Amino acid sequence: MNGQNDKIRIESEPFRQFTSALYQGAGVSKADADAVSGMQVDTDERGVFSHGTRALSGYVRGILNGEINPKPTPQVLTDAPSTALVDADNSLGHVAGIYAMNMAIEKADTTGFASVAVRNSNHYGAAACFAMMALPKGMIGFSTTKTGGASVVPHGGMSGLLGNHPVGYAIPTKTELPIVLDMAVGQIAWGHVGTYAMEGQQLPPGYVLDAEGKPTQDPRQASGMLPFGGYKGHGLAIVMSILSGVMTGGPAACNRTEETPPDLARRGHFFFAIKVSNFCPLDEFTEAVDAEIRTVRNAPRAEGVERIYLPGELEWLHQQDALRNGIPLHPTHLKSLATLADELGVEVFWR
Amino acid sequence: MNGQNDKIRIESEPFRQFTSALYQGAGVSKADADAVSGMQVDTDERGVFSHGTRALSGYVRGILNGEINPKPTPQVLTDAPSTALVDADNSLGHVAGIYAMNMAIEKADTTGFASVAVRNSNHYGAAACFAMMALPKGMIGFSTTKTGGASVVPHGGMSGLLGNHPVGYAIPTKTELPIVLDMAVGQIAWGHVGTYAMEGQQLPPGYVLDAEGKPTQDPRQASGMLPFGGYKGHGLAIVMSILSGVMTGGPAACNRTEETPPDLARRGHFFFAIKVSNFCPLDEFTEAVDAEIRTVRNAPRAEGVERIYLPGELEWLHQQDALRNGIPLHPTHLKSLATLADELGVEVFWR
Repeated sequence: MNGQNDKIRIESEPFRQFTSALYQGAGVSKADADAVSGMQVDTDERGVFSHGTRALSGYVRGILNGEINPKPTPQVLTDAPSTALVDADNSLGHVAGIYAMNMAIEKADTTGFASVAVRNSNHYGAAACFAMMALPKGMIGFSTTKTGGASVVPHGGMSGLLGNHPVGYAIPTKTELPIVLDMAVGQIAWGHVGTYAMEGQQLPPGYVLDAEGKPTQDPRQASGMLPFGGYKGHGLAIVMSILSGVMTGGPAACNRTEETPPDLARRGHFFFAIKVSNFCPLDEFTEAVDAEIRTVRNAPRAEGVERIYLPGELEWLHQQDALRNGIPLHPTHLKSLATLADELGVEVFWR
Repeated sequence: MNGQNDKIRIESEPFRQFTSALYQGAGVSKADADAVSGMQVDTDERGVFSHGTRALSGYVRGILNGEINPKPTPQVLTDAPSTALVDADNSLGHVAGIYAMNMAIEKADTTGFASVAVRNSNHYGAAACFAMMALPKGMIGFSTTKTGGASVVPHGGMSGLLGNHPVGYAIPTKTELPIVLDMAVGQIAWGHVGTYAMEGQQLPPGYVLDAEGKPTQDPRQASGMLPFGGYKGHGLAIVMSILSGVMTGGPAACNRTEETPPDLARRGHFFFAIKVSNFCPLDEFTEAVDAEIRTVRNAPRAEGVERIYLPGELEWLHQQDALRNGIPLHPTHLKSLATLADELGVEVFWR
């Protein structure tokens, strides 16, 4: 979906240091800055530019404006053997997500299956990042989040009302690349709409409605996002809104008002981790998943289809390319990062 | 989707006794027979005829043929605070599902969140039935299952390979009808294709491919089911195949061979239950879900749309109608039940 021709290839390692320095310049601790920028650069490497460092300027400006807390003290509000609810103290979403997913993994290591919900957080980037934290532990990870706007049109509706929640799963493998499903309940993520707009491209038909409820392909006119698969995406939107929203306290996103307390109005997340070896030996599991991957990949293909991809496979291939050749970033995006760096006195290594 | 004109209205209560008697006639205990037939009649009441008593003759004949064990002894193979793996001893799928979901609910009552996987089971009807078992306990329920055939076409493929797994969630409410999402990862469930065929109707375009990989609308020519939402349904199919298949032991359904031991080749299921009050007070939760339901229902509607439905709402309305006026069943279906009843010496109350 991205025109590669006008991209500038940026090396990962200095880019990690550069982006971490931006957070540190805004008052974030080195540990948190490294973790957040690391996930965002990973996401760029994986070709998911909509959810990588393209959001960084917004986050850092949020901190500088006093909207996001750079030095949060997360608080565990409820705690049980296989669940917890965390108040993230208005932290960066990635900081909250890493904290909560680590807690879910730790609990799942003891009980086999655990979930942690978060309130009072912010945009957490790509759902996949948190689900993937389960992989090195031999666990299946899950991640979803409350979103900012009420932007997904209910099935049969004409304007945005539901959140464009992601559904993120990561499944460990043996020698094949892990299965990583990260999909929005709308036709696409809003971050992708922004990428289309930034790159001056038209959206495919059937993706969005304009402010008057009419179909449009102009990303700048997009007002309501249609759910994918009609009533199915609509149903998943409602379920995810409850896991990541209502269950973390306060009203559903579509019922938020000016009276909603900020800690309940901000983003919520929901994570879980499943310890595979509680069900079957991890080796047998990962071998069988690898076998399934190969069978799907080698299935007979429809005319004109060059390759059948497993969930997340395209992103792994992007990452391999990025690690060899640099991350292909859009000049407009790099310029906006450079402007921020100049303001914060951080050196721009690619100029 | 069902032509109501030629249906015969059958009263629920005698139909429950009749269908239970059929199972008992095949050697199933009264308790199991009542439970299984009860879920199937519930499913008919909810208008999901594809997954209700239409499957009963097949199940009972499976028992009579020695393919399904009418008197199973389920065995807990692995057990931890929040997980278990159960060998269902080749039971009816509903019997296995009820056993496992009850176990998940009991564990979740202690730890907050628990999952139970099942192997060596059979077709379990509608995923929703098991997810809904969580509702009276103030829990969110989840249910998925391995399916019989490798029938869903991978995204970009030309023939069936993945299972048409369901994704089933149930969410408790206060005064509104509970949210019950039960959707197949294919465009529709195969049971619905059977219903179209039985009723002599054409399928909508874009649902299935024939044996040569070409699109068709004839339900009798259907060979491969297309995933809903393209790569998204494809991705969910793979994730659900792993939760309900690989994790319960043995190969993925698409890698099953004649050498696969029967206990691993049969159906597997995966259930979980979340105790809402571990996250927030149940009353606050159900009130906020009710408010979300009303907001979605009252959203501005697209031209020609009479009503926006919540997941499962249509099924609740069908049930209310069925309880008032009887379940509208197809004569062909009733005839097949009557034939079975005659063989088993069970009285056919509607003749």
